[in-house]
Amino acid sequence: LPRSAVELRCQCISTYSKFIHPKFIRNVNLTPSGPHCKDVEVIATLQDGSEVCLNPSAPWVKLIIKAILDK
Amino acid sequence: LPRSAVELRCQCISTYSKFIHPKFIRNVNLTPSGPHCKDVEVIATLQDGSEVCLNPSAPWVKLIIKAILDK
Repeated sequence: LPRSAVELRCQCISTYSKFIHPKFIRNVNLTPSGPHCKDVEVIATLQDGSEVCLNPSAPWVKLIIKAILDK
Repeated sequence: LPRSAVELRCQCISTYSKFIHPKFIRNVNLTPSGPHCKDVEVIATLQDGSEVCLNPSAPWVKLIIKAILDK
C-alpha cells in the first residue's frame, strides 16, 4: 500500500526551514489538509531516501515546486 | 520502502487530461526528471486510492498544486 492509503493523522511534527537544493530532492509529496490533518503537508524525499517535511508557505518551497513543474 | 526508493524508470505511460476536482485528490506526488526518467512526473492519488498521472504542463494541474499549497 502506498503510504497515502494508510495516513490517518498528520505526518509532519515540524518542518525543515533551511533551503534544500532541488538536485538533492528525489520527489515531493503534497497532501491537502483534510479530516486526517488540518495542515497542508509537503514531504520531500531526498536522494539518499530520507524524508523531510517542508513548510508549504515558505517561498523557496513554492519556488522549488514551480521549478519541478516547469522543467 | 516508499515507492520513490525503488523507481528506476518512468512511472507514467500516459497522462489523464480531464480536470479532476481537488476534493477527489488525496495527495499529489511530484518527481523531477532525472536519470531514471526524462519526464517530470505528477501522480495524484485519489480519495479511492487509485493513482492517475497528470500532465505537469497542464494549467489546471499547476492551479491545483498552487491551490493545495495556498490553502
